[in-house]
Amino acid sequence: MNFSSKILEEAVLALSSLPGVGKKSALRLALHLVQDNTEKHIKIASALQKLAKDIRKCTVCCNISDTETCALCLSSARHSQVICVVESARDVMAIEDTNQFKGKYHVLGGVISPLEGVGPSDLSIDLLLERIKKEATEEVIMAISPTIEGETTIYYISRLLRETGVKVSVIARVQS
Amino acid sequence: MNFSSKILEEAVLALSSLPGVGKKSALRLALHLVQDNTEKHIKIASALQKLAKDIRKCTVCCNISDTETCALCLSSARHSQVICVVESARDVMAIEDTNQFKGKYHVLGGVISPLEGVGPSDLSIDLLLERIKKEATEEVIMAISPTIEGETTIYYISRLLRETGVKVSVIARVQS
Repeated sequence: MNFSSKILEEAVLALSSLPGVGKKSALRLALHLVQDNTEKHIKIASALQKLAKDIRKCTVCCNISDTETCALCLSSARHSQVICVVESARDVMAIEDTNQFKGKYHVLGGVISPLEGVGPSDLSIDLLLERIKKEATEEVIMAISPTIEGETTIYYISRLLRETGVKVSVIARVQS
Repeated sequence: MNFSSKILEEAVLALSSLPGVGKKSALRLALHLVQDNTEKHIKIASALQKLAKDIRKCTVCCNISDTETCALCLSSARHSQVICVVESARDVMAIEDTNQFKGKYHVLGGVISPLEGVGPSDLSIDLLLERIKKEATEEVIMAISPTIEGETTIYYISRLLRETGVKVSVIARVQS
């Protein structure tokens, strides 16, 4: 593509590195931003910079957080006897949106997948075990997707938890 | 949506202000950036900041440019006797990609559209007229979309150019 501007070309290249954004969409976005008032892209740029610099993982549950310990872990309104184990921060949002769960969460950061080179040590399983001991957890609910990798992960964690005496349950699923 | 992080929420809001990006896509993009290494979003953020600060319109042809006068206008390899009039910077790219046109361009910045409140004074028509006089242009090629608004714009500019004696032509179109 013939860009009349190097700055535009760089913006298109940067935007097209996003998932699901091809070169054409990136050009459309960049041209929209150029034609638009400048406030919008300064807002986006500063939001992304903050995202890069200030966002971190909660040291307790590994969820995305602005602070060292996330608001969900700090909340006294939530009972810590029940921990819901999920794959990603997105799952926490989905469950929170239902407004039905009042326990705490633990974000694994993925599932065990030998094909993709993800082993148990790449997930926050050790942290989960430590936490269960420290917080005197009574129940662990596995809210992990019913794929082969997901089932393997559930099995792996369940085996580790067998010794601790904690009740392990899996969320209800629609049988397909 | 229940965001566990204010920073994430701001990023999702900012990204969803882009055309064609809904809240769900914005969340997907933001979470991808969080999970990814931070280099990528710093790159995107700085590219967008540059886009906001440093990009400008070429003072001659109104195309997007990094400098006061764009590379196409400065190029001595292009003959200034022919000016191709287009709606937007995207059209310049499209024509440049064909590698067939060796004249210069003039970007109107839209078409006359009373319904959307765009009158001739909102477009760079005055600048085009001045330029034609100054550069001793021989031919103006209208590469404007064949909509009612486009045809109106072509007619309007053609009438203004009638006095100058410049040849006005319209690019070939496929009859539908």
